Amino acid sequence: MNEVRLGIVGLGRLGKRHAHNLRYRVPGARLVAACSVVPDELTWARDELGVENTYDSYDKMIASDEIDAVFLVSTSSFHGEQIKAGLAAGKHVFSEKPMGVTIEECHDVEGAVAAAPNLHFQLGFVRRFDPSLAYAKQKIDEGAIGEPFLVRAQTVDTDEFAEFQIKFVPNSGGIFMDMNSHDIDLARWFIGSEIKSVYAIGGSYVHPGFAEVNDADNTVALCQFENGKMAVISASRTAFHGHDTHTEITGSKGILKIGMTPSKNRVEIFDDKGARVECVQDFYERFHEGFLLEAQSFVNGIIDGVKPSIFATDGTRATEVGFALTQSFKEKRVVEL
Amino acid sequence: MNEVRLGIVGLGRLGKRHAHNLRYRVPGARLVAACSVVPDELTWARDELGVENTYDSYDKMIASDEIDAVFLVSTSSFHGEQIKAGLAAGKHVFSEKPMGVTIEECHDVEGAVAAAPNLHFQLGFVRRFDPSLAYAKQKIDEGAIGEPFLVRAQTVDTDEFAEFQIKFVPNSGGIFMDMNSHDIDLARWFIGSEIKSVYAIGGSYVHPGFAEVNDADNTVALCQFENGKMAVISASRTAFHGHDTHTEITGSKGILKIGMTPSKNRVEIFDDKGARVECVQDFYERFHEGFLLEAQSFVNGIIDGVKPSIFATDGTRATEVGFALTQSFKEKRVVEL
Amino acid sequence: MNEVRLGIVGLGRLGKRHAHNLRYRVPGARLVAACSVVPDELTWARDELGVENTYDSYDKMIASDEIDAVFLVSTSSFHGEQIKAGLAAGKHVFSEKPMGVTIEECHDVEGAVAAAPNLHFQLGFVRRFDPSLAYAKQKIDEGAIGEPFLVRAQTVDTDEFAEFQIKFVPNSGGIFMDMNSHDIDLARWFIGSEIKSVYAIGGSYVHPGFAEVNDADNTVALCQFENGKMAVISASRTAFHGHDTHTEITGSKGILKIGMTPSKNRVEIFDDKGARVECVQDFYERFHEGFLLEAQSFVNGIIDGVKPSIFATDGTRATEVGFALTQSFKEKRVVEL
Amino acid sequence: MNEVRLGIVGLGRLGKRHAHNLRYRVPGARLVAACSVVPDELTWARDELGVENTYDSYDKMIASDEIDAVFLVSTSSFHGEQIKAGLAAGKHVFSEKPMGVTIEECHDVEGAVAAAPNLHFQLGFVRRFDPSLAYAKQKIDEGAIGEPFLVRAQTVDTDEFAEFQIKFVPNSGGIFMDMNSHDIDLARWFIGSEIKSVYAIGGSYVHPGFAEVNDADNTVALCQFENGKMAVISASRTAFHGHDTHTEITGSKGILKIGMTPSKNRVEIFDDKGARVECVQDFYERFHEGFLLEAQSFVNGIIDGVKPSIFATDGTRATEVGFALTQSFKEKRVVEL
Repeated sequence: MNEVRLGIVGLGRLGKRHAHNLRYRVPGARLVAACSVVPDELTWARDELGVENTYDSYDKMIASDEIDAVFLVSTSSFHGEQIKAGLAAGKHVFSEKPMGVTIEECHDVEGAVAAAPNLHFQLGFVRRFDPSLAYAKQKIDEGAIGEPFLVRAQTVDTDEFAEFQIKFVPNSGGIFMDMNSHDIDLARWFIGSEIKSVYAIGGSYVHPGFAEVNDADNTVALCQFENGKMAVISASRTAFHGHDTHTEITGSKGILKIGMTPSKNRVEIFDDKGARVECVQDFYERFHEGFLLEAQSFVNGIIDGVKPSIFATDGTRATEVGFALTQSFKEKRVVEL
Repeated sequence: MNEVRLGIVGLGRLGKRHAHNLRYRVPGARLVAACSVVPDELTWARDELGVENTYDSYDKMIASDEIDAVFLVSTSSFHGEQIKAGLAAGKHVFSEKPMGVTIEECHDVEGAVAAAPNLHFQLGFVRRFDPSLAYAKQKIDEGAIGEPFLVRAQTVDTDEFAEFQIKFVPNSGGIFMDMNSHDIDLARWFIGSEIKSVYAIGGSYVHPGFAEVNDADNTVALCQFENGKMAVISASRTAFHGHDTHTEITGSKGILKIGMTPSKNRVEIFDDKGARVECVQDFYERFHEGFLLEAQSFVNGIIDGVKPSIFATDGTRATEVGFALTQSFKEKRVVEL
Repeated sequence: MNEVRLGIVGLGRLGKRHAHNLRYRVPGARLVAACSVVPDELTWARDELGVENTYDSYDKMIASDEIDAVFLVSTSSFHGEQIKAGLAAGKHVFSEKPMGVTIEECHDVEGAVAAAPNLHFQLGFVRRFDPSLAYAKQKIDEGAIGEPFLVRAQTVDTDEFAEFQIKFVPNSGGIFMDMNSHDIDLARWFIGSEIKSVYAIGGSYVHPGFAEVNDADNTVALCQFENGKMAVISASRTAFHGHDTHTEITGSKGILKIGMTPSKNRVEIFDDKGARVECVQDFYERFHEGFLLEAQSFVNGIIDGVKPSIFATDGTRATEVGFALTQSFKEKRVVEL
Repeated sequence: MNEVRLGIVGLGRLGKRHAHNLRYRVPGARLVAACSVVPDELTWARDELGVENTYDSYDKMIASDEIDAVFLVSTSSFHGEQIKAGLAAGKHVFSEKPMGVTIEECHDVEGAVAAAPNLHFQLGFVRRFDPSLAYAKQKIDEGAIGEPFLVRAQTVDTDEFAEFQIKFVPNSGGIFMDMNSHDIDLARWFIGSEIKSVYAIGGSYVHPGFAEVNDADNTVALCQFENGKMAVISASRTAFHGHDTHTEITGSKGILKIGMTPSKNRVEIFDDKGARVECVQDFYERFHEGFLLEAQSFVNGIIDGVKPSIFATDGTRATEVGFALTQSFKEKRVVEL
């Protein structure tokens, strides 16, 4: 096998980008099918990408022999069922995070993955493929900072999405579920242990509407790992400079900081506002290379028969910790996992 | 009055620097006396600074009419008594932090300060005088970042002092008391409210000796204020790049970051190790301008009859929060103040 | 036409990268042929990229109806002849710089391009496609820095290639021809005028071998444009931190600086060597996105029938100025163009 | 001798700052006299600094036995005569640059200095005392960048002074004399050789008034040293971000860059204008520490009997090169020294 025939599911903003990558920029990938309940999205797939087969039903798509793998960029609440159905149909599965919206669902997915040892399952923890974060991991593995014991990870969105997000709290599960799953995954990845206790605080400092739905626009949380190590995980929906997702790993011999200033490019401007850089404005602008490398990794893994380095348990843990953070914030107490 | 006659107390490493500033670089200051139980320190004061009167007894010094003010750079455990005695003797008092090593002592000092309304009392929260931190405060007061709601403050020392510090834990009161009092003060200063609950974690990740005395070499703490706002306060004794004390203030319209890279000076080096700056190595190298401006502020305040902007309650609060952090760390729970 | 069938010429280090881009990452491109006099390179094209048709003769390749366009990454001295032959055979032509190794050859190419108005000719001034430099151009066109009047552009290679380069001086034409053609092009692009006088100095400060062949390892040149504006163009073959190609444009209202610290990625390292970033090590690491966008631009231009924004005269000017700089350096005088 | 009694000459903007330093911040200095033809300046010296003796005549001041040294911050055209008269009167002399406004005058001063071997003469090349530039020199002397062979030095003022400067061109001698003397001195200091040829270009790109008086608002110059090494020296009167005086030294093993971003302090601002720092606005804000250390060096030198490291010939060379640059600019040719 030297080519993977893929069917993409969901062609919203991020879905379109994944589809474009799979169509044009991932050697070994052949995007042959697209599935969406939005007719315009299927039209786009046909006209812009020349995708041959379009479906308004996921079940029909996975019943087809024309695809080897599905690539799920659907609504979060569908992920769990679609992963299980895809595997059951004998397809390799890539799914955007979250793996499931309840812990039971995550465990179900874990079971389905375990039951299909010959199929490739990969969860969209895209930051692990960001060239800078991946380089940091490599440096750490080489011993560059000794033993890592503290991770600080934050996800910060621009203020412009905030009012919109208030309406989605019932679906998103709130700020910790919506924004910190990548941070949780990075902390686990860099520390190499499981989080055993969390404490989270926050507030609606800019948009009172979040408080009205028992959520927050800015939060900070402390996590302690089973091995005693630490993570500080924070989220903000109210930045004005840009999307500011950065990560710091402190070790016994040094510190790595990744993306402290989320510069848009290599241009510095010196004018009456000082010496400045413009910043990336959303997660895709920041992680566009990661999305490409992630898809490449999925396709290469299938072709080469190499198991992915992200496991279903990683998805379960991210969800578990997200729930624990939410509970800690709401109950104002330390939550043990 | 256009000159303040000062007696310095304690001529260790920091005391010598304060003495040099008072002798040579603070207009309006006249350093006329020095007090120490170490004979060599008094010799140094006479020979290097030309200080006329030297004392081995604090009581004798404050009994003298030749001084208007005392400048305490003595051992922490003496501060409370020396402040009270100094005020009782009719002297203006500057004291290095902490104001007291127990909360009762802090309250006693508060009472003594209140009972001497015509005397000037200033506590050594030097970071408030650092040109960069002071500039940040001014920007915030001007509304540059809207309403501040999150402070992240850290004090990080180089690893070389760590083994030495282990022996001093019984005196220092541990990492939170020893290293975070300035961070606590900055958080209160920038947020403008009182801390009402804290949660701290940490560990002895590099030097197991700290664990043996029930202390830590790296810690992080979450603080929530009465008005719901937040602070993240951390400490490390194990840095290799330098003394890295930085502060971030997030507001509703922007963020200020102060000292993120603790560069030694304006020199960048491009060589086979990459593009780099060297860093300041200790708190004095970082805050030497603050120490000078702090002393100037004390002297100007006395001459001009302007009350200092740092109050005795600020000292009490820093100590209270330090104790709460220590308790939280030891008891592994959220502590309410 | 919605696909361009391409034949690549030359599969050395850079040729392989162009070929990989054309094969996998440029929508609209179809790499159908490869030409090289090195048998291993053709084997690589067949085995790694699945290129169907391979040629050891350029003439044979351009005689084929199976290609619409040639993509020249051959030895510099062949460019002129191959461009002319390609156009004469009715093929669109992309050529790496230089367009020609003599000014006559450049003029010949200009004539051939003018005689083929329906064919697309694009010269490899890749830096114009670098996202940061392109963004700078856009900002300037929008008036962000007022009227630009000074460009400082440098090309700096790591020392490791220096001894190797000494042997190639007879072919490369020396440091100004070899290293500054992109800088000259950028200066003309940003200033929008023609260089009318140059003065260059330099020396063999690290590798005496350059002096022995009447060349230099480090040079700086001043250029004045017909409209009186200025450029400072420099080159170095002796850097230890990395490949450091940066550009500054000063205008009447501000300055843009592009790539001042040639950081490898977004990772900062804080350790006993200070606070530092690692740097890109060669031009491809710095400009890999530009190479991709350049190829995309060529292919899109053919499909959409849009003329390229880089003209044959741009190639001629770069060569003319390169000769003038060389002459100025050798004759130690201002040279007028 | 453990104290130097000083008389300052000229109490304009810079003179006042020097006087304040000498009065309050330079151990060993005693500011006992001030000389000015502006009565208000003498009033200021008496009232603000408590200077005992004020003079409206330089001759009277140097006739007094009450001063050991003069500190000249007078109008440039008076420096040469005042230096000579001061030395003749047996006073140590510090003089702001330039040492003289003609080369003859410089040679006269050199002679006067040579004729007074027991007197201390120091010229105000303040940048040599800037902590960052001094640190760079020390690193170079320690071999950190191997053998230095290229210096790039620039002096850049904010646009607000430009229109004012046009009127002063007849006195200032034009942009090269007015703005580049420190850059010339730094280049000589770092390279350790004498400049033997220069070529300068420039224009009035923002303020046409400079062209009308045969001067420029932005210039760049190439200098070659007797030992073949190089300097690029530039000046601008039209910056909007701040006073931007930076220096780069390239050596055979690395590069030092000093002050590339002229940040006002350690505060970074992240807001809707991006991630930015504010910049220093004038030379004093940038070099205030250098001015203090320079004065300290002069006083220490006298007390300790240590000869200054800046010689009268340094002043002559700076003037000579300044003239050569001006000539090159006006005559549009390479000028040999």
